[in-house]
Amino acid sequence: MIFASDNTGPTHPNVLQAVVEANAGHTTPYGADHLMEQVTQRLRDVFEAPQAAIYLVSTGTAANAITLACQTQPYQTVFCSDVAHIHEDECGAPEFFTGGAKLTLIPNDDGKMTPAGLRTAIEGEENRGVHGLQRGPVSITQATEKGTVYTLDEIRAITDIAREYALPTQMDGARFANALVTLGCTPAEMTWRAGIDAVSFGGTKNGLMGVEAVILLDSEKAWEFELRRKRAGHLISKHRYMSAQMGAYLKDDLWLDMARAANTACNSLTRGLKQNPDVTLHFEPRANIIFAAWPRAIHRKLHDAGAYYYILDGGLDGPGDAPLTARLVCDWSADEAKVSAFLAKMTA
Amino acid sequence: MIFASDNTGPTHPNVLQAVVEANAGHTTPYGADHLMEQVTQRLRDVFEAPQAAIYLVSTGTAANAITLACQTQPYQTVFCSDVAHIHEDECGAPEFFTGGAKLTLIPNDDGKMTPAGLRTAIEGEENRGVHGLQRGPVSITQATEKGTVYTLDEIRAITDIAREYALPTQMDGARFANALVTLGCTPAEMTWRAGIDAVSFGGTKNGLMGVEAVILLDSEKAWEFELRRKRAGHLISKHRYMSAQMGAYLKDDLWLDMARAANTACNSLTRGLKQNPDVTLHFEPRANIIFAAWPRAIHRKLHDAGAYYYILDGGLDGPGDAPLTARLVCDWSADEAKVSAFLAKMTA
Amino acid sequence: MIFASDNTGPTHPNVLQAVVEANAGHTTPYGADHLMEQVTQRLRDVFEAPQAAIYLVSTGTAANAITLACQTQPYQTVFCSDVAHIHEDECGAPEFFTGGAKLTLIPNDDGKMTPAGLRTAIEGEENRGVHGLQRGPVSITQATEKGTVYTLDEIRAITDIAREYALPTQMDGARFANALVTLGCTPAEMTWRAGIDAVSFGGTKNGLMGVEAVILLDSEKAWEFELRRKRAGHLISKHRYMSAQMGAYLKDDLWLDMARAANTACNSLTRGLKQNPDVTLHFEPRANIIFAAWPRAIHRKLHDAGAYYYILDGGLDGPGDAPLTARLVCDWSADEAKVSAFLAKMTA
Amino acid sequence: MIFASDNTGPTHPNVLQAVVEANAGHTTPYGADHLMEQVTQRLRDVFEAPQAAIYLVSTGTAANAITLACQTQPYQTVFCSDVAHIHEDECGAPEFFTGGAKLTLIPNDDGKMTPAGLRTAIEGEENRGVHGLQRGPVSITQATEKGTVYTLDEIRAITDIAREYALPTQMDGARFANALVTLGCTPAEMTWRAGIDAVSFGGTKNGLMGVEAVILLDSEKAWEFELRRKRAGHLISKHRYMSAQMGAYLKDDLWLDMARAANTACNSLTRGLKQNPDVTLHFEPRANIIFAAWPRAIHRKLHDAGAYYYILDGGLDGPGDAPLTARLVCDWSADEAKVSAFLAKMTA
Repeated sequence: MIFASDNTGPTHPNVLQAVVEANAGHTTPYGADHLMEQVTQRLRDVFEAPQAAIYLVSTGTAANAITLACQTQPYQTVFCSDVAHIHEDECGAPEFFTGGAKLTLIPNDDGKMTPAGLRTAIEGEENRGVHGLQRGPVSITQATEKGTVYTLDEIRAITDIAREYALPTQMDGARFANALVTLGCTPAEMTWRAGIDAVSFGGTKNGLMGVEAVILLDSEKAWEFELRRKRAGHLISKHRYMSAQMGAYLKDDLWLDMARAANTACNSLTRGLKQNPDVTLHFEPRANIIFAAWPRAIHRKLHDAGAYYYILDGGLDGPGDAPLTARLVCDWSADEAKVSAFLAKMTA
Repeated sequence: MIFASDNTGPTHPNVLQAVVEANAGHTTPYGADHLMEQVTQRLRDVFEAPQAAIYLVSTGTAANAITLACQTQPYQTVFCSDVAHIHEDECGAPEFFTGGAKLTLIPNDDGKMTPAGLRTAIEGEENRGVHGLQRGPVSITQATEKGTVYTLDEIRAITDIAREYALPTQMDGARFANALVTLGCTPAEMTWRAGIDAVSFGGTKNGLMGVEAVILLDSEKAWEFELRRKRAGHLISKHRYMSAQMGAYLKDDLWLDMARAANTACNSLTRGLKQNPDVTLHFEPRANIIFAAWPRAIHRKLHDAGAYYYILDGGLDGPGDAPLTARLVCDWSADEAKVSAFLAKMTA
Repeated sequence: MIFASDNTGPTHPNVLQAVVEANAGHTTPYGADHLMEQVTQRLRDVFEAPQAAIYLVSTGTAANAITLACQTQPYQTVFCSDVAHIHEDECGAPEFFTGGAKLTLIPNDDGKMTPAGLRTAIEGEENRGVHGLQRGPVSITQATEKGTVYTLDEIRAITDIAREYALPTQMDGARFANALVTLGCTPAEMTWRAGIDAVSFGGTKNGLMGVEAVILLDSEKAWEFELRRKRAGHLISKHRYMSAQMGAYLKDDLWLDMARAANTACNSLTRGLKQNPDVTLHFEPRANIIFAAWPRAIHRKLHDAGAYYYILDGGLDGPGDAPLTARLVCDWSADEAKVSAFLAKMTA
Repeated sequence: MIFASDNTGPTHPNVLQAVVEANAGHTTPYGADHLMEQVTQRLRDVFEAPQAAIYLVSTGTAANAITLACQTQPYQTVFCSDVAHIHEDECGAPEFFTGGAKLTLIPNDDGKMTPAGLRTAIEGEENRGVHGLQRGPVSITQATEKGTVYTLDEIRAITDIAREYALPTQMDGARFANALVTLGCTPAEMTWRAGIDAVSFGGTKNGLMGVEAVILLDSEKAWEFELRRKRAGHLISKHRYMSAQMGAYLKDDLWLDMARAANTACNSLTRGLKQNPDVTLHFEPRANIIFAAWPRAIHRKLHDAGAYYYILDGGLDGPGDAPLTARLVCDWSADEAKVSAFLAKMTA
């Protein structure tokens, strides 16, 4: 009954199998392997973007930070929500990679940046001439850290504003697949057709060992990306094992199947929680993450039964029985049995 | 007949098997997996360093650059040889990670920094007060990029000078194992007993998919290392697959066996080349790399037969038959048959 | 009738005279001039801090950013108010000089950081382990950008919290003198006796051509400061002209006289504005800056009469007669006549 | 008898007078003063470059480093001589301002970069693909740190190579005027007509209190320069005093007169030294700097008589009487009397 993070789950067997198969013989290193050629072609097809530059790195932080460094001058500021992963969970990676740019935080609504908030933030910069930072890229997280999902209209409303100010856009898609299956649209619709210039296309949280693809829909910065990746120690020498993972991920839409499985489990869990009068949901879950509160005693019961997940605002052993908020994440391997067991234990 | 790089070779089956086995169930991410506990303990045993801080990263560039960033202030300079990997092959990663420190290049002798050269370089800094950079760490590569190996006395002669000036020391051990089996000493003898403070303990070039251990023999900077690693996007979430690789590497001294195999193949190849009057060796190979020159016609013959390796100073199709220098690298999977076939083809 | 900024005003004649006098003959450059010796001694006396390290730079941004770089690791965050000069008016200098640290913005109350706000901000960091930035220094502006002044108790309340978390403290004292004469205390009382570790002791806004002193009350980082200053291009070669300015500034308490003159003019102006029913004050002015709103028509009248000051929220030519906010700054040369003329014009 | 540095000398009285005169009344800060308008126009005239962007900063290190930061990506390398000020005397400012670029050092001949050396250095980069740094700007020092001067043909030979590789060029002209009067050419001839893109036009060493102009002959990076200058704390608020200095410098060719005076004194000193059989000149002095060796006893005699200059390779009190190298610098205020007294003392 582990719902701690999609980072705690296993890798899909097909992916491991592909890694094992990739091991035969000698191969050109540093991304020039033939498996990567296939991955590039496949991702261009998937994104309907035949000119896109495609790169693999091993963490989402690297994917976001290297991309943002290509989009941001040191004297600019990146617009993101106040709960964005790039602000809260990367120990300052964007600041490091950009050479000291700033992040301008936009108050989130339901985990998301709002168009009004973005416009206010943009207008709040560049009103002090050379004394203030200049406007830089707009970065959104899809699905958000709160488990919500931008609709296509919401994405477009944001990128329209970015376009108005001639600012580039980036999508942190660590949970890209989870958002996509929720929206039921195509990758192209959720990205470049909605005005997104660069995507961190997550794989690690969705069944890979550790691979994220960066998709530069505008490939003008491709060579700069390669140099910044190398310089950051993120160019993998035995790259074929990265390519193999991503290849298996894309094959026969495994990535979508895994995301669907995670979301389905999350939906089941959400339904069950809603039926429990002791539970309050903080956001309406739209992907594979739930934030919900219930009394400490129930947390204790779950814990004693072996359930494992993050409690955000207190410990199991505190006094009283005030509700504590849990973050529950379903990964691709979460199934009905696990969900049922968890829900049953809550009310047992 | 591929001798292009130890990055082109396969992963050892034991390592792949360990990765597959590590896949069962859910595990704590970000290095808190139980496999990492075992790796830490095992590496402390191997290095006879019970207090050492141990971290895994996915590239040698990351290992070196994060370590050097912990050892170097931005206004200092790192002393290294003019053929050091950190100077020539990391696209400025040390400069990036340190916030703009400099590298002071010491002319190499046989691929190695000399004590006299180091002393001259150190004395050449800090003679301009605040106007020049301050002295920072001394970094050596073991085995060197030229396939040579520092003896224990040579390491000690260098670290003695570093100690004299109170400078920390770092060993880029991308080919640590190859050097170790050549010297026939213990890891402790080649590192902290010889005055080394921090080691990049390479695995990737020696049979892993992509794991390097950083060993901070002085653990004072351990927390700083963790923060810099995260901030650089090098903290792997599904860390268990890294731990599994390193665990298999260390188990039953697989790492030493693989290095021995590579060095043995290299020795055979060297012997064969020496018997060929058309061949001139540039360095006396001491690990798993050979630099040797022979006429273009022979390069062409090898190429036509499917041999693959780097030619440093010209193309196959140039005019004349002046000797061209080859770099030949033997990885753990190189065997007698491959070596013999190559040598036979040269003289066929 | 210029109240645009204390940067628009002239230099005090005594200061110019000292610069002219400093010109005789040859002198050791780079801060080793004998005038600097006197400045150092004098500032140590003024601050009752015989061990303090004292440096001169030519801008407040340099003073703040170099100091903060000495106090902040790249993976830390600086706590400051959301209207701090280091956030709003230095084009990211702290981020640049620290190698990409972050600023954590604390909502201001009356232009000031509150102890409660600081505690909340501090507690809001370091709750994500290695994933979030670590807590760094606390920086306050005295007097604030809003023309308000921290009382000694307010400073102490803030530094007590910093001490509790073992965080260093910095005071941006671009208008140090204006605050000091308001409080009627000693420099020691307003700084180290109140828990401040480092001070940017402003001179430029208060009658110098361009000199700020940095006072490191804890001199442990003195050499690092010197290196970072040089590396940033802020070590002035013909330093004697800097020393001469600061020497004249300190002589016979000229600096206090000038601040008193500025504050007195500001008080007169405030009194006058309060008597005008068309005027709304945004803050209670405590130093030499006033934020006040009045109808556009009056702004127009003042402008036509040659008054010059910043209007923050609209132009003279906009429609309607909604009140627009003016920022009025009195420098040391502002006198009763100028104030009276301005006030008279408003009601003329 | 002070020949220590052109940084030890006084400011020209005309310059001081201009500063005093600039003090009247209130003026727009941050470079928008009317004196700066005149300076910009005058420098555009002087350089015959009506489109050039012109900025003032207070140190040569700032001038060089901000300019290079505009010309260099962090993953590039700057080509300069191994005795360049940007390498030896700026404590890593170029590395800091560029975000960690490298300097590729070219062995100097007579203090100068040679075309052949430059070509070799350029060819030595970008031969490792993404693993090595990319080629960046070419920077030369005119006059050099060794007191030599590039001829127009020599400059052109270097910039021709830069053009061939599409690399920008920068001239560190801390002693621009000294070189110019030696060559007897126009500023345009020595810069853009010879292929130079950006110039640090020194004033501080040649009679100003502390002002260098940056001249961006290609103004494409002008706004970036302004942002980087501000962000580095180098935008001076009370800028009029900077403008006044530069205005006086340019007025009636004072800058050329001062450089001529310095060079003339240097020529006299050189002639005198050449007539002394105890003296060996290391370079043929072409500007205002002499490197020459003579026996320790003579150094001692000069020192006892109050002469002050740098001795590079030993102390006055060492044993024996081996020749020690002196660096002698003549500033604008050096006159025949001072030179004669020095020469007389040597042979007294």
